[in-house]
Amino acid sequence: MTQNDVAEGRGRTTDSTKIGGAPVNCSIAATLDVIGDRWTFLILRDLFRGVRRFSDLVDDLGIAKNLLSDRLKRLVEHGVVEKVPYQERPVRYDYRLTAKGADLSPALIALMRWGDEWYADGDPPVVLVHETCGTPLEQHVQCPRCNERVSPGKVRSQTQEPATQKPATQTTQTT
Amino acid sequence: MTQNDVAEGRGRTTDSTKIGGAPVNCSIAATLDVIGDRWTFLILRDLFRGVRRFSDLVDDLGIAKNLLSDRLKRLVEHGVVEKVPYQERPVRYDYRLTAKGADLSPALIALMRWGDEWYADGDPPVVLVHETCGTPLEQHVQCPRCNERVSPGKVRSQTQEPATQKPATQTTQTT
Repeated sequence: MTQNDVAEGRGRTTDSTKIGGAPVNCSIAATLDVIGDRWTFLILRDLFRGVRRFSDLVDDLGIAKNLLSDRLKRLVEHGVVEKVPYQERPVRYDYRLTAKGADLSPALIALMRWGDEWYADGDPPVVLVHETCGTPLEQHVQCPRCNERVSPGKVRSQTQEPATQKPATQTTQTT
Repeated sequence: MTQNDVAEGRGRTTDSTKIGGAPVNCSIAATLDVIGDRWTFLILRDLFRGVRRFSDLVDDLGIAKNLLSDRLKRLVEHGVVEKVPYQERPVRYDYRLTAKGADLSPALIALMRWGDEWYADGDPPVVLVHETCGTPLEQHVQCPRCNERVSPGKVRSQTQEPATQKPATQTTQTT
């Protein structure tokens, strides 16, 4: 990890050495260590939608102030959110996504699309569209070599072994 | 909602009418209502990797049996996971992802990629590759009309209003 990484918020979470008995080197576990909490996901959703002030978040989410304060503090500590003053006397802050926070966009989009698919009664309540042309967006897993969309059944997870060993491969479960 | 929807596990979650004060009709909230729990995400990750038996999940995750039992019961109730007998006397079950469960693949991939980007020290521990050619996969948000990848800053969320009103649009926050 370089100095630059630290500045950008890269690097291990403070308590990611063990999550349950899950492997230390699991990126999903590392992610959940930072944002794996229902309130945190909903706070992030609101920040993506432009709800940025403490009082607005309280009103919109119906979250207790101490819980919101706790979750925001954690997100700031992990470099996902930053406090930006919007008023001088008294100083008041907006909460904004950093580049690291904005990078969670695909995860929020994927969670939303699953809800759209399985829980929206009729049309989904919110549609994500391309700012330029207004067309509803798609999210794909893509093979850059075959230049084709890849379905979950064709995704294989490959464990990165030390250089001297052959990589272990495992096919993701299909139904 | 049709009879078919019920059979496939589609439809509102039992308690999704309110999550905090979040809007009833939010697909992210609906999703979190079913899987918005750290253990549940980790159980799903293991099921995707082919860990399917209760005792194997206990060993792999280091989760208490009562917690695992509770989370699996909930996933079965919501049609995300199904119990499949693999032995007759006594009857023993595997836990397998249904089509609805497999459809969570993009969300798990997105959470993993964020962890890879921001928390992997060096190479990511696991790489997802195309089963056919072994090439590491990419995940994109794509505009089918412009036929281009869309960055988070160019994603706009459009609320679906009743047919008589003009849709409200809002640009997703960029940094």
